[in-house]
Formats: sequence, structure tokens, C-alpha cells
Amino acid sequence: MPAPSVVPHHSALPLVVTWTADGRAVRILDQRALPEHEAYLDIAELRDACDAIRTLAVRGAPAIGVFAAMVLATIAEQGRGDAYAQRDQIRAAAAQLRATRPTAVNLAWAIDRTLAVLLRVDAHDVLGTTQALRAEADAIRAEDAAMCRAIGEHGASLLGAGTSVLTHCNAGALATAGIGTALAPMYVAHERGVRVHVFANETRPLRQGARLTAWELARAGVSATVLPDGAAAGLLASGRVALVLVGADRIAVNGDTANKVGTYGVALAARAHGVPFYVAAPASTFDGVTPHGAGIPIEERDARELAPLPQGVAVWNPAFDITPASLITGFITDRGILHSPFADGANGVRPPPPRLGV
Amino acid sequence: MPAPSVVPHHSALPLVVTWTADGRAVRILDQRALPEHEAYLDIAELRDACDAIRTLAVRGAPAIGVFAAMVLATIAEQGRGDAYAQRDQIRAAAAQLRATRPTAVNLAWAIDRTLAVLLRVDAHDVLGTTQALRAEADAIRAEDAAMCRAIGEHGASLLGAGTSVLTHCNAGALATAGIGTALAPMYVAHERGVRVHVFANETRPLRQGARLTAWELARAGVSATVLPDGAAAGLLASGRVALVLVGADRIAVNGDTANKVGTYGVALAARAHGVPFYVAAPASTFDGVTPHGAGIPIEERDARELAPLPQGVAVWNPAFDITPASLITGFITDRGILHSPFADGANGVRPPPPRLGV
Repeated sequence: MPAPSVVPHHSALPLVVTWTADGRAVRILDQRALPEHEAYLDIAELRDACDAIRTLAVRGAPAIGVFAAMVLATIAEQGRGDAYAQRDQIRAAAAQLRATRPTAVNLAWAIDRTLAVLLRVDAHDVLGTTQALRAEADAIRAEDAAMCRAIGEHGASLLGAGTSVLTHCNAGALATAGIGTALAPMYVAHERGVRVHVFANETRPLRQGARLTAWELARAGVSATVLPDGAAAGLLASGRVALVLVGADRIAVNGDTANKVGTYGVALAARAHGVPFYVAAPASTFDGVTPHGAGIPIEERDARELAPLPQGVAVWNPAFDITPASLITGFITDRGILHSPFADGANGVRPPPPRLGV
Repeated sequence: MPAPSVVPHHSALPLVVTWTADGRAVRILDQRALPEHEAYLDIAELRDACDAIRTLAVRGAPAIGVFAAMVLATIAEQGRGDAYAQRDQIRAAAAQLRATRPTAVNLAWAIDRTLAVLLRVDAHDVLGTTQALRAEADAIRAEDAAMCRAIGEHGASLLGAGTSVLTHCNAGALATAGIGTALAPMYVAHERGVRVHVFANETRPLRQGARLTAWELARAGVSATVLPDGAAAGLLASGRVALVLVGADRIAVNGDTANKVGTYGVALAARAHGVPFYVAAPASTFDGVTPHGAGIPIEERDARELAPLPQGVAVWNPAFDITPASLITGFITDRGILHSPFADGANGVRPPPPRLGV
């Protein structure tokens, strides 16, 4: 089993998804407790893994893909007694993990990639299956970190001294196995001594901008200002923002992009004021199958995320919205800054493998 | 002293600003405690009045204007011993009340109108001054309620059975001495048996949409759905909203409108999807002096409204933003549905009296 390539991380940033020391569980930074507490959870059971994704203990499209691959490797290890039982358990776990969050395509992509490994390994070779899944999970993790770093290098070319960037939600180190996607260019610029400023939308209802983005930027020494989501349009009107940089949960073939709810309104305001709007994402976020945004399922989350509320009132709480490709200046990827549409294999963006129907 | 004309209120809605039974204090519904508790505060001291405005125990541009006039009448009553002291106290109180919130022009308008009374009454007539200020405060209050009712009647013409309206913050009964401004058309429609639906943006950071708008709509039996501010653009894209209806804190001569932060982004999204965007406001909200939105001061509020936050992070927390007149379909006023610009006296909108330099 080849050792995964080692990608330089950022010393001030936490590792969100790792193995425990004995390699029998996946250790995650519990993001529900941030910024007050930096606590870690060791996950070895499928039920706990699904709960961790659903309750956003681990979140961010790239990170949940990496996490799912590592959980499947853990389950393969646990099922080493019987070849048939092992594969049944892996496939059942894959189906449950896939159902936890419908919008982020990285989750389905990582699961599909893990299941494809099963086709390459002798079904009776229980140890070989276990080792292959572990190697694939390590590869997905190392590749994600490497893609983050490459996104940061490409995106840093957009930033000069004193550049102010507006971002929404958290597409940083906490959302990936590396230095993030939308925040990676700022970390790379900062490493090079280029001082930038980040405006972070609070991002209701779960406040990932205020709790997570501001936390990791402060930790890395990058200057940050939090604002209420409603203030973003006025900020863009004020001329204080040079560019908008957000992450993505899924990018359709035509470039329409699903990202945290609120992104679309920011894109409209950026366009109204001539501010460039970039989406940063690794290859795993590009859905090479869904033709446009209308085909992307949008997860609705629990009304209690908006509590407290008066009696007798309904709630609409979609987790994501769709920003049309026409509002997106460019896509900052590990292959460079690209432009839609993204036909299969076009633009050097690797489409995901075909769905395996699990 | 003529009795103020009585305006029919809505039986299910609270009265936000009234006199106490003995007439020696102003009773307000403490909106900081809603929706959990419906508690009232009796305010007789200037310091408490300023605190009530600053901490948003009483809020909403029309309501704070009414409240300020009633507080000045209360202070006139307390200063009945000495003619010179009485007028000094009134003028000093006016200056302090005026400074509490810079954006809402109704506050300055009501104070100017109260001070103008002093010019009409013999300075030595302490009792006459007291009675005149009380009468003016009652008139301002009754007029506000009447203007709300008229706004509701005019605005209801835009609503048919099943119409869905999106609103931001609270421009309802809780923001006025009557049935509200932006919500008044829905109350009038509801009284006529026309069933409408209201989508209410949560409105961070103080959640006046979720806490106040949803509360008063539910109380009046109007169907309501709360959504995070970031979801508004996606909601408008979905085609489920027939029109947007918001209040205003100040309307410049050219029609540029200051309203709760987030309004501008909603207006941009409404325009992108061809959804009509209306501002509802009484005459007291029209600033006949400031030529355009760039001249309207924008209040910044305490960073703690966005707590909890990580260490070392800055906050930008403007209370308002400016929606340019070009995005506003029409202004629903007590005189009908009007269009900008609003030169002094144009369109039947009464400009405020000249500033008295207090």
C-alpha cells in the first residue's frame, strides 16, 4: 500500500478529519462546539458517522466526502471476518452515508469512488479489500489537501496587498482536509506576506461564517470582519470589496452552482456593483452529469435551526441556493481559473465516475 | 383641548404606545421580550425614554416618533413649576431624544413638530404649554394610526386571494401607533376575508422578522412563514412571491429609501425576478430636505448584537441600508400609491417642517 503523498498544511489551522492513533476510528473536530470549544470526536460506528454529518459536527462538501471514504474503510476493517458480510456491510453503509446530505456532490463522488475499488479487488480477499479501501480513503484525503493547496496558489494571483474579499459561510480549512477552498487563496497570500482582509457574512441560521470562518481566519492571523447577511449588499455598494470568493457544494455542467443559502443574493449584489464573483472548488465538486442548477436537489433543514419562534408560524429553511453560471466570473480550481460550461472532461476538470446505483 | 379622532384599531393587535391610566407616563410594549413575553413598561423619566429607544424596547420609525412626542409632553407636565425651567427641560429633552437614533426621520419630525408648538404658546403659560404638548402628542398618535389605516386601504388593492407577500424586518403594528405600514395592507385584506400569505425574513441580528412580524401576524390570524435572510433571493427566484412590501425609516426627496439592513439585497433580487417592490410609509417618513440616499446617516449598532464571536474578530453592524429609488415600484402612503421624486409638497406628500436647530 503506497503511502499517500504528504501535502504541507498550515501550522495554525486544525486538521478536521484524521485517523485515530490506532487507525480504528475517524477523528473529527466537532464543529458544533466552535468557536467556544475545540473538541474532537472519534467515530467508529456507522450510526455515529451519519449523525455527525447530519448534525454538522463534520461539514463542508469536500470534508464530508473525505470523511465518508474514511468511515467506509473503518467499516471494511470491522467486517474482516467474512467476505460476503464485509461487502454487504460496506454497501449498506455507503447507501446510508449517501442519504445524509443530498446536495453536496462530493459525498456521492467519494462514496462512488470507494465502491469502485470493490470492483478491482477479489471479493474473497477480505484483507485486500480492507487495505484497498484504506488506501483509497488516504488518497482521497491527500488529494483533497493537495487540491486545496493548488486552489490557494491559483487564487492568490487575484489578491494584492490590502485586497478585501467578501465570503459567505465557511469554505475554509474546516470544510476540507486541507487549507480550504474559498479561503485557501487568502492563506497562501498571507504566507507570502501579502496582507488581505476578509469580510465574512454571519451565514444564518447556523452562523458558520461568524463561528467557523472568523475563527479559522483569526487563528491564522488573517484580518476578518463579520457582518450580518443582510449587510452584504450594502457592503458591496460601498466599494470596499474587491472580489467575492465562495465555495460550492455542487457545480452543474453549465456552471450553475449550489452553495450555502444566501450565496445567490450575494452574487446578484456583486453583479449590480461590478464586483467579480468567484467560486472556488476542487474537482470533486464538479457534477459532470447534472446539466444545470434546476437539477440539483436542495436539502431543507429542521425548522428548529431558526428557533425561538412564535407559536403558529411556519418555517422555510433551505440549506442551499443556486447561483446561475451567468453571475460567476470564474471557478478557481486545482487546475487553474476556469470558465463554464463544464462538459465531461472539458476544461481539465475531471468528471466523477458513473454512479454505481447503491 | 380637542379629543383626538378615534381610529379603529385591530382587535387582535396590541397597542404599542399609550398613556398610563393617570396620564403621567407613557406605557410601551417592551419589544425586547417578544415573542416569549408580552410585558409593558411605564416611562416617565427622560433617561428611561432614551434607553427604551436605544435598546429597542420601542422601535419602528413611526412608533418612536409618537413615543418621543408623548415623552416630551410628559416632561412638560413635570416642569410645570417654572416657565423658563419648563422650556429648558423640554428643549434639552428634545435634543437627547433626537440623538438616540439618527436614521429614522420620523423621530426628528415628531420632535420638530412638538417644538414648533412652543412657538405658538405664550412662554409664560406653563399650563397652556403642557396642554398644547399633550394635544400635539395625541394628534401625532391619532394621525399615525389613521395613516396606517389609510396605507392599509390603499395597499390592499394590490392583494388578491392567495397573494404571497415577502417582507423584511417589522413594519407592522409593533412599529407604529396603528396597524402598521408594510403589514397594514395584509390586515385590511384579512379583515375583508381575503386570505393572503406573508413570508417574513428573520432579519438578523435582532430577528425582528422572526420575533415581531411573525408574532403579530400569527396573533391576527394571518398565515406566515419565516425564512433566513439569505433565503430571500432563492424564494424570489422560485416564483412563489407576488410582491415585496417593506417599511421605511427615511425616504429622500429622490425616493432613495433607508430601511432595515437587508432591504437593499431583497430589492435587487426582486428586480432580478420581476417581482414588484413596494415601500409603505406615512407622511412622517418622507424627508423633504435630504436630496438622495447618500445624505442619509446610517446608524451603526453594537457588535454584541452579533455575539457570540471568536476572539480577535471585527464586526460591521449597520442598522440600515439604502435602496435606490430605481428599484422601488411604488410608495404606498396614506395619500395613495405614489412615485418618486418627492419635491417639497409634490405628490401630496407633506414634507416635514423646517428643522429648528435644537
